[in-house]
Amino acid sequence: MAGGEAKKASTNASNRKKKEVKKETGLGLSSKKDENFGEWYSEIVVSGELIEYYDISGCYILRPWTMSIWEIMQAFFDAEIKKMKIKNCYFPLFVSPGVLQKEKDHIEGFAPEVAWVTKSGQSDLDVPIAIRPTSETVMYPYFSKWIRGHRDLPLKLNQWCNVVRWEFSNPTPFIRSREFLWQEGHTAFAAKEEADKEVLEILELYRRIYEDYLAIPVIKGKKSEHEKFAGGLYTTSVEAFIPHTGRGIQGATSHCLGQNFAKMFEIDFENDKGEKAMVWQNSWAYSTRTIGVMVMVHGDDKGLVLPPKIAAVQVIVIPVPYKDADTKGIFDACDDTVKALNESGFRAEADFRDNYSPGWKYSHWEMKGVPLRIEIGPKDLANDQVRAVRRDNSAKCDIPRASLVEQVKDMLDDIQQSLFDVAKQNRDACVQVAKTWDEFMEALNNKKMILAPWCDEEEVEKDVKARTKGEIGAAKTLCSPFDQPALDEGTLCFASGKPAKKWTYWGRSY
Amino acid sequence: MAGGEAKKASTNASNRKKKEVKKETGLGLSSKKDENFGEWYSEIVVSGELIEYYDISGCYILRPWTMSIWEIMQAFFDAEIKKMKIKNCYFPLFVSPGVLQKEKDHIEGFAPEVAWVTKSGQSDLDVPIAIRPTSETVMYPYFSKWIRGHRDLPLKLNQWCNVVRWEFSNPTPFIRSREFLWQEGHTAFAAKEEADKEVLEILELYRRIYEDYLAIPVIKGKKSEHEKFAGGLYTTSVEAFIPHTGRGIQGATSHCLGQNFAKMFEIDFENDKGEKAMVWQNSWAYSTRTIGVMVMVHGDDKGLVLPPKIAAVQVIVIPVPYKDADTKGIFDACDDTVKALNESGFRAEADFRDNYSPGWKYSHWEMKGVPLRIEIGPKDLANDQVRAVRRDNSAKCDIPRASLVEQVKDMLDDIQQSLFDVAKQNRDACVQVAKTWDEFMEALNNKKMILAPWCDEEEVEKDVKARTKGEIGAAKTLCSPFDQPALDEGTLCFASGKPAKKWTYWGRSY
Repeated sequence: MAGGEAKKASTNASNRKKKEVKKETGLGLSSKKDENFGEWYSEIVVSGELIEYYDISGCYILRPWTMSIWEIMQAFFDAEIKKMKIKNCYFPLFVSPGVLQKEKDHIEGFAPEVAWVTKSGQSDLDVPIAIRPTSETVMYPYFSKWIRGHRDLPLKLNQWCNVVRWEFSNPTPFIRSREFLWQEGHTAFAAKEEADKEVLEILELYRRIYEDYLAIPVIKGKKSEHEKFAGGLYTTSVEAFIPHTGRGIQGATSHCLGQNFAKMFEIDFENDKGEKAMVWQNSWAYSTRTIGVMVMVHGDDKGLVLPPKIAAVQVIVIPVPYKDADTKGIFDACDDTVKALNESGFRAEADFRDNYSPGWKYSHWEMKGVPLRIEIGPKDLANDQVRAVRRDNSAKCDIPRASLVEQVKDMLDDIQQSLFDVAKQNRDACVQVAKTWDEFMEALNNKKMILAPWCDEEEVEKDVKARTKGEIGAAKTLCSPFDQPALDEGTLCFASGKPAKKWTYWGRSY
Repeated sequence: MAGGEAKKASTNASNRKKKEVKKETGLGLSSKKDENFGEWYSEIVVSGELIEYYDISGCYILRPWTMSIWEIMQAFFDAEIKKMKIKNCYFPLFVSPGVLQKEKDHIEGFAPEVAWVTKSGQSDLDVPIAIRPTSETVMYPYFSKWIRGHRDLPLKLNQWCNVVRWEFSNPTPFIRSREFLWQEGHTAFAAKEEADKEVLEILELYRRIYEDYLAIPVIKGKKSEHEKFAGGLYTTSVEAFIPHTGRGIQGATSHCLGQNFAKMFEIDFENDKGEKAMVWQNSWAYSTRTIGVMVMVHGDDKGLVLPPKIAAVQVIVIPVPYKDADTKGIFDACDDTVKALNESGFRAEADFRDNYSPGWKYSHWEMKGVPLRIEIGPKDLANDQVRAVRRDNSAKCDIPRASLVEQVKDMLDDIQQSLFDVAKQNRDACVQVAKTWDEFMEALNNKKMILAPWCDEEEVEKDVKARTKGEIGAAKTLCSPFDQPALDEGTLCFASGKPAKKWTYWGRSY
């Protein structure tokens, strides 16, 4: 479809231009999601105008189409944490090496990826300075300064910022990049129970970002000891799954740091009994990775598919003026449609460009993933209706202009729900229970997300990793879901044969 | 006042705690604005809880009290530029050296301040990578890629981000820091007139930030050739003035870059006649420096003075429960007052802490600059009124609770206006016309902002700089105001004696 229409559109343009337009707007992807997922993904993020590749490997330009998604999620999350009395702050990008290295496990986790500034202008710095990979060690010396008594608690801060992790393996837009945007929350409490409670409150917000905004089903659970945050007490996460690659992906994490950082950074306080006590800390973050997961889960061979709640443009209105038709009438109807939708709080735009055909525009906005297209041609004008076409399932229907707003509302709600339902069906179809090593290996080879009974021993997880190591990566634990199926007495660990302690999700992952 | 009340407040606290509380909340500043401005400023930004000094020189922690001001300005500016169809994006923090050095004048302006990443983990990078001091050279290679035809124009982007300028002279919180937050807009147009128009539209938004939000009078004008943006065509700015130091301060800049960067980065397009043409570009920015100017202009010896429009807390409500008074009744009245104000859209909070006296709280919130304090004691409760105390002029009045909301609204409006009026009076009192070199030098020694007739020759400006060089810095041009007084025929340049071309503001500056 895209090809034919695009051809028609470009008859007036020079050959040079035609080629470039084709390349720039990516009418049609050259790779298919089912056939070459990696290529398809690299292509769709550019053709959908989310990303531009940058001349430094692993860094990407986030284009306006990306930023509008990010800003919508940010508005939601920022308002929610403000309700929780968490306050925004901004700590420096730079960390001095002494502070960075204070927590041993933590720095071991991050050291290989730290970027170092050693020069300014032509001069060498006296001491190299690190760029934050995360801000625990940046912030906690000041927590120690600010927290004296129990009345200074809880201390609840958040910052929206960029962080740098100079990874060398497989840079992938959104998913694994050397610089990314995120929020990082850092909180300190007098009692462990308060910290535990907040960990789950934040995790629930992350679930809502994925499920309610991005229409992606996630599993809430706890990370294994081996996979938890370096230096923390325990890590909870929301885990998504990409059926096409059979890989789990950590969606966002909410850590209880326990008192480990408090010890290193001497964050103590006088409690209400006048005794010296140590704070309990959390840290939690979600990043622009969310957007990559959304692209992977919903995108198709025509381009992006954006859930209405996060789409910068929810409805694109396209005039279809045949020759001799009442062009002005059609354009006015488009204008009125956009106005009516905007006034009702929808994000709608019209595409009035006169150098592209309607068909070209259909393909263009499909590539960009706009959830609903409205076409208005002479017949629609005559019947006082518009034609609506859904991006997710291509369903078409005519809507009387009198009931435009309510029907668009219903359709957008339905698209949002339907994207989630389809994604959940696809994800659920990938979940496989494995009780033995053979079942586990078979499921792994079939790209499944494996739910297996496990003895919960770190050595066994390391052993599974070693035994499944291969070109496409080893299997590891994704999480132990909070929602645990019944574990029959006597159930054995699929890997060690020891008594199983819990059900855990395993798989390859990003 | 603060001293006496604070003493009373701390009778129950341990000596150790008392000292720390004193230190932490800064009840009373040890330096006076009139006597030692530099010390006063260093102290007030910490005691007012805007800043915490950081262990890397020239980097500062922006505390929540700062971020709430920043976010309010950001919400205003972001909404305004979105109305202008400017879209947010995010380009990488890192620049490769080849691209950075493409525009010669530009890199000469920034090179000494560029921070370089040369290592990741333990490995040396093949090529050192720069951290953006500003993003012209980061963005414009992609402008060249994205702009092909006249229909791709205008291209209007903005980003909210951090930038790094590794300056070595006099780091000062907000005013001169090695990392700061800002927005940077980058736009490209087909015609110079469009670019010129936008330069002024943006400048007007900057004026509104200063005058309408921060209550600081600024002068709109054009920078001299010597002071314009490195690599640009011309620079416009809003200029503020700090009477206490007699220094001008560049508030924000809106540059027309002309076609200079377009040439270097080959940003050309096919115009509507099918000819190859070069784009016209602008860039414009304001930063967290705005907050420093606000502190300097409005702050006093009791602490910060925040204009109501940017204060995180506009009204602080403090219960004053004398012994034997109806404490619950007073607390309830405080609660009701906060609720009524919040529901009417004001940012109000109550300070119910039981370990501080009312007097201590007065001093604390005065230090933090909250525009209006409401006190509720037994007498107020009995008379169904509250007592309101203005931060800016200490004026007190009783408000019947029946008219609370409207009177608070009027008072906040009046405080906002009055802060501006006083600041303008003070600024205007510093403006001095100088027509001769002697008048100029006298005014300069008297810390004036000097309006002088000038021949507009770069050599003359350099000469003035050389002749006024001294410990506290040389005089330079601040701007040539758009609002030019009449220039009588035959008026001569104060410095060169050549015919004057325009009136220009001169002075020492930050």
